[in-house]
Amino acid sequence: MRNVKLTIEYDGTNYNGWQVQRPGFKTIQGEIEKAIRTITGKKTTLYGSGRTDSGVHGKGQVANFHTNGSMPFSKLKSALNAVLPKDISIIKVEKVNKNFHSRYNAKSKIYSYTILNRKTNSPFLRKHTLHIPYKLNLSLIRKEAKVLLGRHNFKSFCASGNKHKSTIRTIKKITIIKNKNSAVIINIEANGFLYNMVRNIVGTLIEIGRGKFTPGTMKQLLKAKDRTKAGPTAPAHGLCLMKVRY
Amino acid sequence: MRNVKLTIEYDGTNYNGWQVQRPGFKTIQGEIEKAIRTITGKKTTLYGSGRTDSGVHGKGQVANFHTNGSMPFSKLKSALNAVLPKDISIIKVEKVNKNFHSRYNAKSKIYSYTILNRKTNSPFLRKHTLHIPYKLNLSLIRKEAKVLLGRHNFKSFCASGNKHKSTIRTIKKITIIKNKNSAVIINIEANGFLYNMVRNIVGTLIEIGRGKFTPGTMKQLLKAKDRTKAGPTAPAHGLCLMKVRY
Repeated sequence: MRNVKLTIEYDGTNYNGWQVQRPGFKTIQGEIEKAIRTITGKKTTLYGSGRTDSGVHGKGQVANFHTNGSMPFSKLKSALNAVLPKDISIIKVEKVNKNFHSRYNAKSKIYSYTILNRKTNSPFLRKHTLHIPYKLNLSLIRKEAKVLLGRHNFKSFCASGNKHKSTIRTIKKITIIKNKNSAVIINIEANGFLYNMVRNIVGTLIEIGRGKFTPGTMKQLLKAKDRTKAGPTAPAHGLCLMKVRY
Repeated sequence: MRNVKLTIEYDGTNYNGWQVQRPGFKTIQGEIEKAIRTITGKKTTLYGSGRTDSGVHGKGQVANFHTNGSMPFSKLKSALNAVLPKDISIIKVEKVNKNFHSRYNAKSKIYSYTILNRKTNSPFLRKHTLHIPYKLNLSLIRKEAKVLLGRHNFKSFCASGNKHKSTIRTIKKITIIKNKNSAVIINIEANGFLYNMVRNIVGTLIEIGRGKFTPGTMKQLLKAKDRTKAGPTAPAHGLCLMKVRY
């Protein structure tokens, strides 16, 4: 029995998120499981590092599955890509220790949220960035984002559907850059994320950047532990799972 | 009568190119003319700097039109974008001299052709880059591309449908860069381009980069003035009109 680790890139636009749901709902996990079945002839469960929501993208999602198949790894990648839809790509296939589990062994994850901050939306970026036509104060956003670094109770940024017992997480790194195409990229690395946590943090940072929330808001929100006090949930299509660290 | 200059960005994927053709064919020019008519109430002809083919993209296409409309320029841009499809964006609106003509006054144009040169295609880039899984020899491509600089007869790179009398053009600049995402970007600036010229040059450079054509090919092709001797026409979706200089 081999344990196979996949690194996956996907455009989530036309999917109902990562996780297999009821029949008729197209999901990333479902498409890859179908591809594995086509190739190995066996129904196989794929373990993802975590779910991504409907419309969220992936550039470094990781998943693993167990197989008796004997296909060489070099061929497995191209065989999977040949049967997968074009908006899902396997970019790496690795043999891993039999105990490796994409979710349980993950040490941290990096998500990236992209905002196109210019007057006119871009025909090229519109499906993968949130368009904000009004000016955002980036230095204010950066200052407030810093407050989130470290171990905190992120209950104010956790959607009510969250199933985790604890709402304590550690944010290891936040970087906010603006590139020459006016795209503001917010990268957040944490040991784990609560349901909708990145999108709720970004929604709050946007309110700060446009002056609707005053400086000091993030500190208050960490204390408040109240989702209703934070900003709105930023739309899914600006979010991308960039990397899972092990 | 005002003469209005537009700078336009478009994702050409779902269009039959720039130029209005027979009814039922969706074109960029057609969509913008329709938008102008909606706003001004008058049927108006839009003059583009040049046609782009079916599937070719634009990030800096320029066009102009004459209007009696009195809408302020600041509002015209957002009014046009409000009625245009989302894969076409007006990024700049300027008032220009009554004699300005997008095509006749253009001094040079810059086209960009993007090749994703890695084993696996990208779900995000696949509609705007040509995927080439085998390794390209970039230093060879750069060396051969240099031969094209200057004033030459580009007949070997001109599609048979070309209507220009002369096939002599001046290439002012060629840059070939590879970014960290394995995208090879070929930028070509010329005083004008023959029909399919960029795509034919790129198709030939690819054959050079994969070793199918030997070094010295470009020099021979310029001499040969024979389209059948050059490489194939690279697909439309990797091509983008980046800038028109006046």
